[in-house]
Amino acid sequence: MGTLSSSLLSQLESQVIELPSWAFGNSGTRFKVFSTPGTPRTIQEKLADAAQVNKVTGLSPKVALHIPWDKVDDYDALRDTAAELGVTVGTVNSNTFQDDAYKFGSLTHIDAGIRQKAIDHHFECIDVMDATGSQDLKIWLADGTNYPGQGNLRGRQDRLADSLQKIYDRIGESQRMVLEYKFFEPAFYHTDVPDWGTSYAQVSALGDRALVCLDTGHHAPGTNIEFIVMQLLRLGKLGSFDFNSRFYADDDLIVGAADPFQLFRILFEVVRGGGYGPGSPVAFMLDQCHNVEDKIPGQIRSVLNVQEMTARALLVDTEALDAAQNAEDVLGANNILMDAFYTDVRPALAEWREGRGLPADPMKAYLASGYQKNIAETRVGGQQASWGA
Amino acid sequence: MGTLSSSLLSQLESQVIELPSWAFGNSGTRFKVFSTPGTPRTIQEKLADAAQVNKVTGLSPKVALHIPWDKVDDYDALRDTAAELGVTVGTVNSNTFQDDAYKFGSLTHIDAGIRQKAIDHHFECIDVMDATGSQDLKIWLADGTNYPGQGNLRGRQDRLADSLQKIYDRIGESQRMVLEYKFFEPAFYHTDVPDWGTSYAQVSALGDRALVCLDTGHHAPGTNIEFIVMQLLRLGKLGSFDFNSRFYADDDLIVGAADPFQLFRILFEVVRGGGYGPGSPVAFMLDQCHNVEDKIPGQIRSVLNVQEMTARALLVDTEALDAAQNAEDVLGANNILMDAFYTDVRPALAEWREGRGLPADPMKAYLASGYQKNIAETRVGGQQASWGA
Amino acid sequence: MGTLSSSLLSQLESQVIELPSWAFGNSGTRFKVFSTPGTPRTIQEKLADAAQVNKVTGLSPKVALHIPWDKVDDYDALRDTAAELGVTVGTVNSNTFQDDAYKFGSLTHIDAGIRQKAIDHHFECIDVMDATGSQDLKIWLADGTNYPGQGNLRGRQDRLADSLQKIYDRIGESQRMVLEYKFFEPAFYHTDVPDWGTSYAQVSALGDRALVCLDTGHHAPGTNIEFIVMQLLRLGKLGSFDFNSRFYADDDLIVGAADPFQLFRILFEVVRGGGYGPGSPVAFMLDQCHNVEDKIPGQIRSVLNVQEMTARALLVDTEALDAAQNAEDVLGANNILMDAFYTDVRPALAEWREGRGLPADPMKAYLASGYQKNIAETRVGGQQASWGA
Amino acid sequence: MGTLSSSLLSQLESQVIELPSWAFGNSGTRFKVFSTPGTPRTIQEKLADAAQVNKVTGLSPKVALHIPWDKVDDYDALRDTAAELGVTVGTVNSNTFQDDAYKFGSLTHIDAGIRQKAIDHHFECIDVMDATGSQDLKIWLADGTNYPGQGNLRGRQDRLADSLQKIYDRIGESQRMVLEYKFFEPAFYHTDVPDWGTSYAQVSALGDRALVCLDTGHHAPGTNIEFIVMQLLRLGKLGSFDFNSRFYADDDLIVGAADPFQLFRILFEVVRGGGYGPGSPVAFMLDQCHNVEDKIPGQIRSVLNVQEMTARALLVDTEALDAAQNAEDVLGANNILMDAFYTDVRPALAEWREGRGLPADPMKAYLASGYQKNIAETRVGGQQASWGA
Repeated sequence: MGTLSSSLLSQLESQVIELPSWAFGNSGTRFKVFSTPGTPRTIQEKLADAAQVNKVTGLSPKVALHIPWDKVDDYDALRDTAAELGVTVGTVNSNTFQDDAYKFGSLTHIDAGIRQKAIDHHFECIDVMDATGSQDLKIWLADGTNYPGQGNLRGRQDRLADSLQKIYDRIGESQRMVLEYKFFEPAFYHTDVPDWGTSYAQVSALGDRALVCLDTGHHAPGTNIEFIVMQLLRLGKLGSFDFNSRFYADDDLIVGAADPFQLFRILFEVVRGGGYGPGSPVAFMLDQCHNVEDKIPGQIRSVLNVQEMTARALLVDTEALDAAQNAEDVLGANNILMDAFYTDVRPALAEWREGRGLPADPMKAYLASGYQKNIAETRVGGQQASWGA
Repeated sequence: MGTLSSSLLSQLESQVIELPSWAFGNSGTRFKVFSTPGTPRTIQEKLADAAQVNKVTGLSPKVALHIPWDKVDDYDALRDTAAELGVTVGTVNSNTFQDDAYKFGSLTHIDAGIRQKAIDHHFECIDVMDATGSQDLKIWLADGTNYPGQGNLRGRQDRLADSLQKIYDRIGESQRMVLEYKFFEPAFYHTDVPDWGTSYAQVSALGDRALVCLDTGHHAPGTNIEFIVMQLLRLGKLGSFDFNSRFYADDDLIVGAADPFQLFRILFEVVRGGGYGPGSPVAFMLDQCHNVEDKIPGQIRSVLNVQEMTARALLVDTEALDAAQNAEDVLGANNILMDAFYTDVRPALAEWREGRGLPADPMKAYLASGYQKNIAETRVGGQQASWGA
Repeated sequence: MGTLSSSLLSQLESQVIELPSWAFGNSGTRFKVFSTPGTPRTIQEKLADAAQVNKVTGLSPKVALHIPWDKVDDYDALRDTAAELGVTVGTVNSNTFQDDAYKFGSLTHIDAGIRQKAIDHHFECIDVMDATGSQDLKIWLADGTNYPGQGNLRGRQDRLADSLQKIYDRIGESQRMVLEYKFFEPAFYHTDVPDWGTSYAQVSALGDRALVCLDTGHHAPGTNIEFIVMQLLRLGKLGSFDFNSRFYADDDLIVGAADPFQLFRILFEVVRGGGYGPGSPVAFMLDQCHNVEDKIPGQIRSVLNVQEMTARALLVDTEALDAAQNAEDVLGANNILMDAFYTDVRPALAEWREGRGLPADPMKAYLASGYQKNIAETRVGGQQASWGA
Repeated sequence: MGTLSSSLLSQLESQVIELPSWAFGNSGTRFKVFSTPGTPRTIQEKLADAAQVNKVTGLSPKVALHIPWDKVDDYDALRDTAAELGVTVGTVNSNTFQDDAYKFGSLTHIDAGIRQKAIDHHFECIDVMDATGSQDLKIWLADGTNYPGQGNLRGRQDRLADSLQKIYDRIGESQRMVLEYKFFEPAFYHTDVPDWGTSYAQVSALGDRALVCLDTGHHAPGTNIEFIVMQLLRLGKLGSFDFNSRFYADDDLIVGAADPFQLFRILFEVVRGGGYGPGSPVAFMLDQCHNVEDKIPGQIRSVLNVQEMTARALLVDTEALDAAQNAEDVLGANNILMDAFYTDVRPALAEWREGRGLPADPMKAYLASGYQKNIAETRVGGQQASWGA
């Protein structure tokens, strides 16, 4: 099929990119959250939107929940709703940054009562996992301080270890915990899990089912992210990705939008390190904000970017690459990588997509479907979902 | 008076550090805005809080307004309220980032109608200036784009020039316009006024009363800010400072909290370049967010930091410094600067403060005053001020 | 011709990318400069190598000189040698960073005698320009300090202005001066021309034939370089590019190697802003170091990268882009840009190249030519050229 | 004794800051290495210079060697020379970046023969340790690549683990190995030990006597270094510091010169985490380049900076700090830290120094000693030491 072999295409068959429920709600900056017509008011409407992405791409049969934003009374009913829409519940994300109690920390808080409250919240998340069939509990910890001296860095780290142990002890045998790290924000002096080394040290102390979550927007300027991917795969501790892209800080832009070549390099290391394909322990997720662009199309663009770049990563002639590397042929080796990157895989993917009963151009198909117009007209009243609800 | 000569102290007599009204309201990140007891509900209450800072420090007789957050029906009454509190209205700040119309730009917007709306807003700000006696109009422009291709960079720049001209033409002979630049946020791909060069080029095209505002938190990592201070003073275009500090991005922490030595170097260049003292065109303002710390004490800490560091900057033996520089004595010259920085000016300033009828320890005096307890108890009901109100 | 129209290809006809003579010599880091067989010993051998790049690509008929590294006794003879090789002398680069006298500055030095020495060196460069037909004098100034207090920032800036004026007064009516800026290195506290704003302010004070040189590796992390390109073109002050790429600092890697999408965006703004094509004042130059890769192939790869990315920039459907931008269609506009970027222009360029009597695959042609083997065998003895000689 | 208690001063008694032999030789950038009169030609002369630093400060009785730069035929004689000068040999530093064989790697090289050569070099370093009584082998690995695809990141990491194991197996029971990490340079795409996480993972696989070396200049912009100090101490893996300071990259400036407050925070975490004082496993070393300033005075300034900042770190009222932290008193806690930082410890240290038979002002004493004049006059001829020799 043109530039892509059938063997390569078969490796794309099973690709799953999990969508975050919150990407369909409104988001913004501390300055302003703009609202848009058609924005979902409930988790059910978020699932419906996510199903549209899957319908035209075939790539996103899973939707990650965020608790409490997506709390419902009846998770069986939610599971049924999802099933009807052709999706399932993916990772459950906890929230320890919006309750007034957490102003000075949650799992790291000096106060044992507040720590327990945060631990209990994770127990609740595990209950949601049990009820929905979700397998991964993701912890992104906003804990940190804004001023030198404000907190005891070491004490906080020790308390974090203790809290994580309590949560880890609760997850089931077939469930996993992934611990995300982040360079900064919302804390501006120190963050309690600021880098992969800290996340790695913490999860290593827990056990096999505790792993690291790598958010591609959570690093210091200039960080070689694919190196971290390689290292975590080598150490057996890469659990999942939060894909997005950034020019400056944690911009949460569409994955691949800021530096497509970086995304390519990351996916190349994923493939090379055994992080892709059936049996791989690595979950692919999006974590993005569509502040100014349309949300459903934004998600469609995102999963297609990941798919197209995965195809390019799979295109790399690794045999020739090994040979060039072993021969110390710097430009030759680099050229083999670049050749895959510069190959236009889009026509072959469009053709292949059609062969699987999917639209050749998913974006066009979605825009032509009338769905956007419909939700804009019918989702009237109520409270549009955003990070607060 | 100990480490500080009377001549040096006399130079501190007239120091004025303008307080931002919004520093007394709640602020936070896109993740959460924590509220606190006693937070003002109105501009009048903000002025009352600002007056407390001035009362114990003698440093902050001016308060900057933000329109529309601080809009009132009767500016004469507001002026009277301020006067009773011992403060006056300083810079008027416009807001072109919170109206739904500005989602894709304000002064740079492709739509002439929206541009005019933004221009009209500035006319309204000038009316407020006229009514309150404010002399400076400050424009911080949030305009920008999130994705490559989203906007025409050149067209936006040209429209900006046109909009600024219209605003500049409206300000009075004794009024000034200052144009702030910012590296990024809320836009994540390009910002229309991202650096001092752009602000300088834009204001130079307007006239003498258009100047640059330098926010100390609005630069790329590693930027030598004191160099920019020197250059803008040399070019006659430094109009004002927005003081704050940062470890990562635009963290808006207390000035001097993240890198006190950098604040020292900045103030040294201000003094050396003629930007300090009576007759200087440079306005000192704070622009900070007290997300987790108490707001009034946060402002007290801030103005004291600026005062103490100004004292250290004035302490530098410039004659000896010149000699060492001319002799290419690298370590000698550096040591002259460091000697001033490492001098503990706090005891002398406390003594001097007392001699002027101010508390030796302004923070202690404020905390002992009962003011905080009082506002926490009495400011009940209503809507606490934050960036949205 | 496949993906590229004949109209587009005709715009590529006249593209010239100037090669730096020093790229053919050895280079490295402060830790080590590795030598390689076949490295030129003289400027004549450098020209011969440069001619090879032009021979297989048709893109590089100009070679920039660096004085004193490329000084000869007889410039007429050098001009003849160049002509025989099918190349001409391009920009003349001055050097004010390797003489012991410049330890504490050159054009900014406190000592008038040393300043004059540096000015005289530029007069000598202008003489070389006159003798070789070069039209551009490029000044990259390494001047700066390593420690706060070491130098008087303002005094140095004023002396720089004075020195530049003296040099500018000497250049001929048909010659230009371009002033390069650089974020840091070799100075580690302050650099006297650290940003585009400073270069712009300095050249604006001189006259029409003084312009800014933008080196793509000389910015703070995260800087939006294409914005600066747009702004300098808008202000009529973009004189030339030093192309290279970077992951961290001034890495001087092959242009397009680190962030191909950034190179695309830069070239798109060049094209859109009138900086490309006959009559444009913008000179395209390379400034790179081939520390570990082969030098001639490194230059071939570089000019091809610029050509391919220029083709992609020319591919952008600007009419559709304008329409999408005006309609505030964020994803649509972005997609139009990305569509051009993701188009594989290499096959069409290969075909077009063959039609012009050039090898379809320049790299393969060079590697097959035996040139590399020949110079490795025959350039024996003598001193291999590097930055010192 | 003024601001410093006798208990605090007694904690300073045993402070040792190891000097790098190479700091006394010439250094520079890739652009130029400036030479200076009096620069040592031999390791014996370097030791003599280092002894001067110790003579006036009492802080630096140890000198680190760099092999092969400091290789001698007779290490017994070298040990005697050192003893006569009142110093001993400290850490032995290996060099795997200047041999032509290491162009594409050393301990990570694809070629087993070159790996063994690099391993053998470390065996030789261990022999030097045995002969000189040195206890620490420090490995800073320059290995890395400049272009994506050039090397196999995973393969290199595995080979590194294997090479390190062989070296670790050779060190004696009372010896240690410390593995330094560095963000970038001399490699510009990937570095094989780029961050603390990688160094930690590698040394953890080896054993108790393998530890991490933290160079304060080897991090991405914005990195919270004191957090890493805390974490490594918590994990029991902080072996040593390479102190220096930076504004941009690995500038290797005098420690404390760029951001004194950061140095303070680092030392505070060292003290708090048990990394300071008798019995602590953490070695304090300098690693700096005196490119433009005098070298012996540069080292004097450096050790005094560390001593003064250690005194400030010890000054922190940790009891009050704990109380403020536990009370969530952000500004109070911060103020306790800042109070120590802003205290001028210099007069008390001068007085204390005199009481121990040391000059009150070490810099002045050195400058008055005539040593500099003497070496400038007598060290004539020979090859001044620099990184190459």
